[in-house]
Amino acid sequence: MKKTQILIIGGGPAGTVCALTARKYYPDREITVVRDIENGVVPCGIPYMISSLRDPADNASSPKPLTANGIETAVERAVVIDRAGKTVRMESGEVYGYEKLVLAVGSSPIVPPLPGVDLPGIYPVKKELGYLLRMVEDLKERKNILVVGGGFIGIEFADELSRLPGCRVSLVEILPRLLANSFDPEFADLAGEKLKENGVEVLTGTRVTGFSGKDRVEKAILASGEEREVDAVVLGLGARPNVNLAAAAGLVLKGQQGIWVDEYLRTVDPNIFAIGDCATKRDFYTRKGIAVMLASTATAEARVAGANLFQLKVIRENKGTIAIYSTYVDGLVLGSAGLTEDSARKEAFEIAVGNAEATDRHPASMPTASKVKVKLIFSRGSEILLGGQAAGGISTGELINIIGMAIQKRDSRSELETLQMATHPWLTPPPTKYPLIAAAMRARSVD
Amino acid sequence: MKKTQILIIGGGPAGTVCALTARKYYPDREITVVRDIENGVVPCGIPYMISSLRDPADNASSPKPLTANGIETAVERAVVIDRAGKTVRMESGEVYGYEKLVLAVGSSPIVPPLPGVDLPGIYPVKKELGYLLRMVEDLKERKNILVVGGGFIGIEFADELSRLPGCRVSLVEILPRLLANSFDPEFADLAGEKLKENGVEVLTGTRVTGFSGKDRVEKAILASGEEREVDAVVLGLGARPNVNLAAAAGLVLKGQQGIWVDEYLRTVDPNIFAIGDCATKRDFYTRKGIAVMLASTATAEARVAGANLFQLKVIRENKGTIAIYSTYVDGLVLGSAGLTEDSARKEAFEIAVGNAEATDRHPASMPTASKVKVKLIFSRGSEILLGGQAAGGISTGELINIIGMAIQKRDSRSELETLQMATHPWLTPPPTKYPLIAAAMRARSVD
Repeated sequence: MKKTQILIIGGGPAGTVCALTARKYYPDREITVVRDIENGVVPCGIPYMISSLRDPADNASSPKPLTANGIETAVERAVVIDRAGKTVRMESGEVYGYEKLVLAVGSSPIVPPLPGVDLPGIYPVKKELGYLLRMVEDLKERKNILVVGGGFIGIEFADELSRLPGCRVSLVEILPRLLANSFDPEFADLAGEKLKENGVEVLTGTRVTGFSGKDRVEKAILASGEEREVDAVVLGLGARPNVNLAAAAGLVLKGQQGIWVDEYLRTVDPNIFAIGDCATKRDFYTRKGIAVMLASTATAEARVAGANLFQLKVIRENKGTIAIYSTYVDGLVLGSAGLTEDSARKEAFEIAVGNAEATDRHPASMPTASKVKVKLIFSRGSEILLGGQAAGGISTGELINIIGMAIQKRDSRSELETLQMATHPWLTPPPTKYPLIAAAMRARSVD
Repeated sequence: MKKTQILIIGGGPAGTVCALTARKYYPDREITVVRDIENGVVPCGIPYMISSLRDPADNASSPKPLTANGIETAVERAVVIDRAGKTVRMESGEVYGYEKLVLAVGSSPIVPPLPGVDLPGIYPVKKELGYLLRMVEDLKERKNILVVGGGFIGIEFADELSRLPGCRVSLVEILPRLLANSFDPEFADLAGEKLKENGVEVLTGTRVTGFSGKDRVEKAILASGEEREVDAVVLGLGARPNVNLAAAAGLVLKGQQGIWVDEYLRTVDPNIFAIGDCATKRDFYTRKGIAVMLASTATAEARVAGANLFQLKVIRENKGTIAIYSTYVDGLVLGSAGLTEDSARKEAFEIAVGNAEATDRHPASMPTASKVKVKLIFSRGSEILLGGQAAGGISTGELINIIGMAIQKRDSRSELETLQMATHPWLTPPPTKYPLIAAAMRARSVD
């Protein structure tokens, strides 16, 4: 048996950051990270292996930061946790003893049980370098590619595929619009328009009912009965938490979608933590369970867990999970933090909404200027910020993080109205029209 | 006599934003904005009239947003305030009666009393369109240009001038380094290096003692006695608040550099407000008087004043002024918020400092990636964020605003360590290395 003090199962962003954080807070403990695949990838970089990255292998993740910090690594697949004995048995037969165990076992892409879904040429998005390199090589040779799912991964794949010379791309989304869970229509529609401009066929409000083909996929069948010729299919339908290992050890509570954890990422077993996609999350506003599977969320959890494995050293001051997203479609950046107008209504919040637009340089004729628009959603009575969305150029990626921080700090409308900020001709909208402030000032009750 | 309810003197960013804010909060009041020049400019855009803007006249400011919102405007120079009678007499002889008066009279560029400083070809940076257009036209014809002052305006002018074909630019700064008031050396030096790469001669730790020439400036004399041939000189030595009008009305307190105001921008006279460069500011950390002359600060004050002219409607939750700056030197962006390590030491704060570096895209080979580095300064005992600096690409302009917000919200080190944020390959550093979080995690006591 191999003994270690901190055993982390999973070598993705959550496992890696947890190990490095634990190294900082517990400099003298033995830490071991096991991963079940030899070569992983940077998860958010997967779509960019198609066109943006010159060499798709650049998206490989590396265990180097671990070994450089005195953390043991191994390629092993965990099969049984013995909570009483505090050991984990691996597929290889090897057994690891632990004092603290961290499950960072991630999620698996959803593969809908459709006829023909296992045909070659149909690709669920697995986070494995070799698989993805083969997928990218195949996709680059195809002419008719169907992307199933109009969430982040779907639109990013469609955008990247549309840049392949001679490639015709279709995107199918079951809901009436793209990005419906994260954006209100006036923002989500910008992504759809951009894709259409670039020749992507966007089919919303429809779904795929099956696939057919001889040696590989040749046709996709839509709900209307229409059959379409396709050379390849990418399935971007989201993911499900990997819970089998934990469930067998009694760590998944009844009715939970993931491994149950408290605010400090502790499972029901005080010596076992779970972080990232495999762990349950509670909504910042309502404490309901929510599914947010983002590397950024996973690393935030990993930092909380890594610091707090043996004692609670770092207090988690912002309880619950805020979904903060950003995405990129051929130069257009969309960001969303917290509740949308739609989701706030669904949760029965009484709201006030403010919108503002500006150019992200000033004066507007500065080189590289593009439009930026911001929408903020406040609680009507308490005037606390509930959510925000932004669309614009590259800087929108950090602008949405300002909104994210404002939500975490429970900023009020008047605090945003009197916000102090830096503005610069080359970098931001003018101080007279800084859209975050302007949107706060313009917030009005909506029914 | 012309009667108005809200009289605002000054048509720059402070006066304009105050008028628009007052229009929102007091929709039925008469508002009049008088300015003493026909055509003003966007103040932070002035350096960019040289090269970045194809047409320098694009940097003109416009009174259109005022007239579009039912605000009267006039070109008048105020000469006497009669506080008892609640009137202002203009140079034209016209008298305006007011209920509430807002002084947004700005600042004037410092012109040091050196021999020859009034020679043609020597340009203090006045915020007047006609003057600046003539200046730009003249500068574009010159070969040897000296910029005096290594603060923001000086380095931005030097950067822009260095792009004029065949133009040799020298920059003189009296202190041992550039940007010394806003950046620690390791950040400020990046600006100096960039300027030098672009052929700017950077002379720190020296000063100009005078100028000579026949019909226009021909030579600058340095403290060493060296005489240099120059065809034109830009004076970027900062500005002094315009206080004469207010001082004559008894609104400037003894020993104050500007018009004394409380947290709501009220002067000692409850019917008179002062905002922007002409008004005193108190430091966020120490409540000492500080000179921060930024359009962004001015507009933040304008919003507080404009909402609160008749009643205190919008509470100012973040008291005091935080200097938040960003600047741009040929693609390099520097941002600073709050205290630097130097200024924190000078104020005797016991500090912890953390540094982090990353690429602003991920993986690092994504197109357009550049390095970003962040430094955070915390109070050692209370672990509250005191200041931050960042250097990187365009997004650094908003990244510094995240740090600015964290300071305003008195974020602790552990809050930043557990920050939730969005990351994206095209937009931000990777979630595993987001430098704001990494710098917080690495903060260590320094002596």
